[in-house]
Amino acid sequence: MSGEPIQRLILELARLPGIGERSAARLAFYILRNSVDTGVGRSAQSANRIAQDLAQALLDASEKVGMCDRCFNFCADARCTVCGDSRRDERVICVVEGVADLRAIEAGGAFRGVYHVLHGALAPLDGIGPDNLKIGELLRRIEKGGVEEIILATNTDVEGDATALYIAKLVHPLGVRTTRLASGVPMGGELEYLDQATVARALADRRDFG
Amino acid sequence: MSGEPIQRLILELARLPGIGERSAARLAFYILRNSVDTGVGRSAQSANRIAQDLAQALLDASEKVGMCDRCFNFCADARCTVCGDSRRDERVICVVEGVADLRAIEAGGAFRGVYHVLHGALAPLDGIGPDNLKIGELLRRIEKGGVEEIILATNTDVEGDATALYIAKLVHPLGVRTTRLASGVPMGGELEYLDQATVARALADRRDFG
Repeated sequence: MSGEPIQRLILELARLPGIGERSAARLAFYILRNSVDTGVGRSAQSANRIAQDLAQALLDASEKVGMCDRCFNFCADARCTVCGDSRRDERVICVVEGVADLRAIEAGGAFRGVYHVLHGALAPLDGIGPDNLKIGELLRRIEKGGVEEIILATNTDVEGDATALYIAKLVHPLGVRTTRLASGVPMGGELEYLDQATVARALADRRDFG
Repeated sequence: MSGEPIQRLILELARLPGIGERSAARLAFYILRNSVDTGVGRSAQSANRIAQDLAQALLDASEKVGMCDRCFNFCADARCTVCGDSRRDERVICVVEGVADLRAIEAGGAFRGVYHVLHGALAPLDGIGPDNLKIGELLRRIEKGGVEEIILATNTDVEGDATALYIAKLVHPLGVRTTRLASGVPMGGELEYLDQATVARALADRRDFG
């Protein structure tokens, strides 16, 4: 039982997505080598104590970070930086599955509207229905008025498509325009390596050119 | 600045080996989704609070885990489970670079001797010399007597080979047999990722060295 704290650290790390037990063990030993007092050794050169720093960052984040009370982006205040920016166009709401998607769109810098984070996608087999997502909150936002367009930027997989369709049906009666991100050939992508579904979609949605 | 605790969590996660900034962001958002009070949402089904659990495991490990005062394996007591096991053959010491390597050999179950963890390999370009490894401690262990064989189970890459050679030259004058793991370990491969059968074969086929 002497290895118990080590084993527990490995198990906790293995709970993270994409990290198996072997990767978790590798991370745990790396953390220990850089956190435990090894006398001499590599820890001498990097006297930063990863375990303590990471633990503090985790506790800080779990204490201070909440969700924006309007768009459900993660933030440390009541309003996130996007919703708190008066220059953003509140008439256009981009609906995304997760905060990572929001960040990806923000990184592009082209979108000037605001967001709504669903925190997931419909997945009946996993027990995730409309009540488990921020869909009701989106409808109440729209009902308050002033919204002209809902961009459905959920993923283009089965769950994302189903979620977009579900929301579109609910939003339609409210007289708000609903759009979906264009699908097709990625910029810089090569046709040769694209999957058939994407090629078919790109053909079907072809646009006039020149 | 409202995103500051989130950004700090991402940066701390990105310090881990093999985790880039994008993976770190993905992990951070997963952790937040399962730790922050999201009202409804996926967190409802898994009420386990990953951030707090992982932080506690990290703090526990950094507080309770130290190194075995003989072989420098990680453990929560003065002696590790291997050194504390009276059935192990103390005449044979298997020298490994890291605790992950020790675990890989233990998983094979074929080795009945004891270990010595160097906590690294010689890497002059990274500023890691003999004094940064547990080499002096190994020599003092041998000088105490009773040791008949040193199995040099460092990795088969440049640093591991150089480390094995360096130790063999120091051990040779002491009249102790030095061996190196045999074929079965692919060149450039890392022990940590080998299957158990290959590790066992490499142990059985070890050859005289230095």
